[in-house]
Amino acid sequence: MLKNDQLDQWDRENFFHPSTHLAEFARGEAPQRIVTGGSGCHIEDRDGNRLLDAFAGLYCVNVGYGRPEIADAIAAQARELAYYHAYVGHGTEAAITLAKMVLDRAPDHMSKVYFGLSGSDANETNIKLVWYYNNIRGLPQKKKIISRWRGYHGSGLMTGSLTGLHLFHQKFDLPLAQVLHTEAPYYYRRADVNQTEEQFVAHCVAELEALIEREGADTIGAFIGEPALGTGGLVPPPAGYWAAIQEVLAKHDILLIADEVVTGFGRLGSMMGSDHYGLKPDIITIAKGLTSAYAPLSGSIVSDKVWKVLEQGTDENGPIGHGWTYSAHPIGAAAGVANLKLIDELNLVQNAGEVGAYFKKALTEAVGDHAHVGEVRGEGLLCAVEFVKDRDDRVFFDASEKVGARLAGELVKEGVISRAMPQGDILGFAPPFCMTREEADEVATKLGKVVKTVLG
Amino acid sequence: MLKNDQLDQWDRENFFHPSTHLAEFARGEAPQRIVTGGSGCHIEDRDGNRLLDAFAGLYCVNVGYGRPEIADAIAAQARELAYYHAYVGHGTEAAITLAKMVLDRAPDHMSKVYFGLSGSDANETNIKLVWYYNNIRGLPQKKKIISRWRGYHGSGLMTGSLTGLHLFHQKFDLPLAQVLHTEAPYYYRRADVNQTEEQFVAHCVAELEALIEREGADTIGAFIGEPALGTGGLVPPPAGYWAAIQEVLAKHDILLIADEVVTGFGRLGSMMGSDHYGLKPDIITIAKGLTSAYAPLSGSIVSDKVWKVLEQGTDENGPIGHGWTYSAHPIGAAAGVANLKLIDELNLVQNAGEVGAYFKKALTEAVGDHAHVGEVRGEGLLCAVEFVKDRDDRVFFDASEKVGARLAGELVKEGVISRAMPQGDILGFAPPFCMTREEADEVATKLGKVVKTVLG
Ligand SMILES: Cc1ncc(COP(=O)(O)O)c(C=O)c1O
Ligand SMILES: Cc1ncc(COP(=O)(O)O)c(C=O)c1O
Repeated sequence: MLKNDQLDQWDRENFFHPSTHLAEFARGEAPQRIVTGGSGCHIEDRDGNRLLDAFAGLYCVNVGYGRPEIADAIAAQARELAYYHAYVGHGTEAAITLAKMVLDRAPDHMSKVYFGLSGSDANETNIKLVWYYNNIRGLPQKKKIISRWRGYHGSGLMTGSLTGLHLFHQKFDLPLAQVLHTEAPYYYRRADVNQTEEQFVAHCVAELEALIEREGADTIGAFIGEPALGTGGLVPPPAGYWAAIQEVLAKHDILLIADEVVTGFGRLGSMMGSDHYGLKPDIITIAKGLTSAYAPLSGSIVSDKVWKVLEQGTDENGPIGHGWTYSAHPIGAAAGVANLKLIDELNLVQNAGEVGAYFKKALTEAVGDHAHVGEVRGEGLLCAVEFVKDRDDRVFFDASEKVGARLAGELVKEGVISRAMPQGDILGFAPPFCMTREEADEVATKLGKVVKTVLG
Repeated sequence: MLKNDQLDQWDRENFFHPSTHLAEFARGEAPQRIVTGGSGCHIEDRDGNRLLDAFAGLYCVNVGYGRPEIADAIAAQARELAYYHAYVGHGTEAAITLAKMVLDRAPDHMSKVYFGLSGSDANETNIKLVWYYNNIRGLPQKKKIISRWRGYHGSGLMTGSLTGLHLFHQKFDLPLAQVLHTEAPYYYRRADVNQTEEQFVAHCVAELEALIEREGADTIGAFIGEPALGTGGLVPPPAGYWAAIQEVLAKHDILLIADEVVTGFGRLGSMMGSDHYGLKPDIITIAKGLTSAYAPLSGSIVSDKVWKVLEQGTDENGPIGHGWTYSAHPIGAAAGVANLKLIDELNLVQNAGEVGAYFKKALTEAVGDHAHVGEVRGEGLLCAVEFVKDRDDRVFFDASEKVGARLAGELVKEGVISRAMPQGDILGFAPPFCMTREEADEVATKLGKVVKTVLG
């Protein structure tokens, strides 16, 4: 328990919170919540609230809160050796072990893993690798990166450009010129409501082909996508999407980066989203699920094909000029090793798949027939409910009505944390993998109640 | 002790090391070192070597290795609450407390701190803030960033562009167009050897003025610099440099970003490099010294002037679209709180100043008169010895001779870790602040011996 009465004031006066209304927060108009502990799917705050966190932090505390196995591993590493760097062939047992464990869980054709801190910096590394790769191959023009509208790939200058959401572009002059966007694989929001899923996939492919044609395939280095869209709306891809997209990429010698920051290590009910949907990526981005957020750690897994060119590059040019001081930080690595072990021991990937299916059914039963519910969707423990003004004609609410935010606000009052996704009236649910069927029912029931209160 | 015989092989097969010759490492031709523990200024590896680390990791383990106070704080936080996010007004006691402690140590005119993970991501945040700031002020053209040749500000696409070292640009298509470089404040390497220090400062100012004139002041948002050059050569600024530069920036309404990743929290013998050299920055970058690397954490400290505009921005546009999942990570924050306390309790800032002066004198006595030593320089515990082919005519060695790397290699055989800086034949010394006079003497004596062996 906290004893310091000044924390509230210190917070308002000194702490620049991410993704926050800075002025309202500083003036004391926006709420503040100081979190003190957690266990399983629940967190506690210092005002004595206990909340069921159905978004696992920022869909990252995959094994749940309060796992002593990971805390002990972190503590042991901190005592033994909190830090040494990984530059120029240095390493620690934890980092090397984790590299091996990651490769064991990645698709067979992957070769090596570079460790960073955040999903954003891993995607930054990935773009650098794509550029380096095509420079070594003697294709210096082949550099642009194609991302999808509604993709989320980070919040940096280049990674925020990859992100295809307006909130992350406005007033920051993004996207930068090196990044192009194509159609989001979001069937429910297709422009032409008469399209079948198959027709919509053909449309996505045609859009991609047209973009490549317009820009010239020789200017395009890579395509990046989340196996299932995350922050843009939690949307599993339409059937056949990835097979069709990969055919186009292969034809034009464009690398595929699978951003598995959310999907990696179990969220869809498979170890990797790439395996779940049949992707054969050249580079895979990992972060959140790698440590379940117990310590910062991210990674870029590179394939044999890319690695060979990187080797050639260093043979020709000497050491690669890339690194973060905290690359492969031992504390993060120790957390990662303990986390991946725990996921296996507790069979959490399977649980995510099974409870995920149960949860989606429960959500559908609770609100699926409501006049303002357009779609209940999900795969594994990545689920969403999308709200609309008119269900039959698929008319969306005006953003100014803040329907999603109001629903999330009411749901918190019932003791359940969901996330109002940033673009559209979409409530996201991505709980820890240890969620039980009872907890799934609780979330669904409370959502049903709240939807009735807010939307009638 | 490590028991796993396969670590060597796992390392070569799976682990993509930063700043490494990837091909040689994978083929087993480049050396590997697996670090197992440390205490004070020493580390141990699993082959039984015990080395005096006179570069403190990557000049970041400022309080020294094996501090139980920080390990305990990390362990306690991991058990209590390893993670919750800081988005939308959420926080933890550790992060809020650290924000207050950072502001207490920063110059008076600073207002708030945003926490990231790495020095690179903090500078990424800083550029985003500069762009946002000038968009809100209605100056959408005022965006370019001026950095110095030989500055080091990170390894991302934009932050690697800020970095003014060739190794970090080559084959990555950097620097990007938004970044401009100006003269390095490196008196020993001045083009015109006849210049006095005063004349050289006037030259740096004239170069900056000319660049601003050429580009148009209305296109330039900020100037970034380390109070004393770090990775570019460990060079204290010539006398009067910062006062003169700041005058130019003020005249042209250009923000000053002080990158204190190396200098922050004591390395120069003052709490902040800005205070040490009389900088009044608009934004300060912090990382390494903030946690002494016990856990990843960085920060962007923003001034009252910048913060006011950020508030206006969110009043006009709603929440700011910027954040990393692991912003203000509780493990990093707990490490930071314990680290800053320890620095105070052990009086380490003062020790860095005093032992730093003693160390520089010892280095000077050991090698200052050697025919191939061009300069021994330093401020606090940031020292360097620069080697030259001809001392009198200041002729540098050819890079292909790898003099710096050979010296560092020999010194390691004597049990002392230094760093061969990436550009030039410069041996860098930036030990933990707890270095004793005896350890300083040991480094100097061994350096003397090695210089004789390698250079006669
Ligand atoms: C798919 C995906 N990629 C990248 C990121 C960026 O990760 P971070 O916030 O750790 O920078 C996120 C974060 O939500 C993400 O969901
Ligand atoms: C002055 C300075 N700024 C920024 C950085 C980048 O920090 P990181 O390696 O944590 O990204 C460094 C790293 O050495 C640095 O010395």
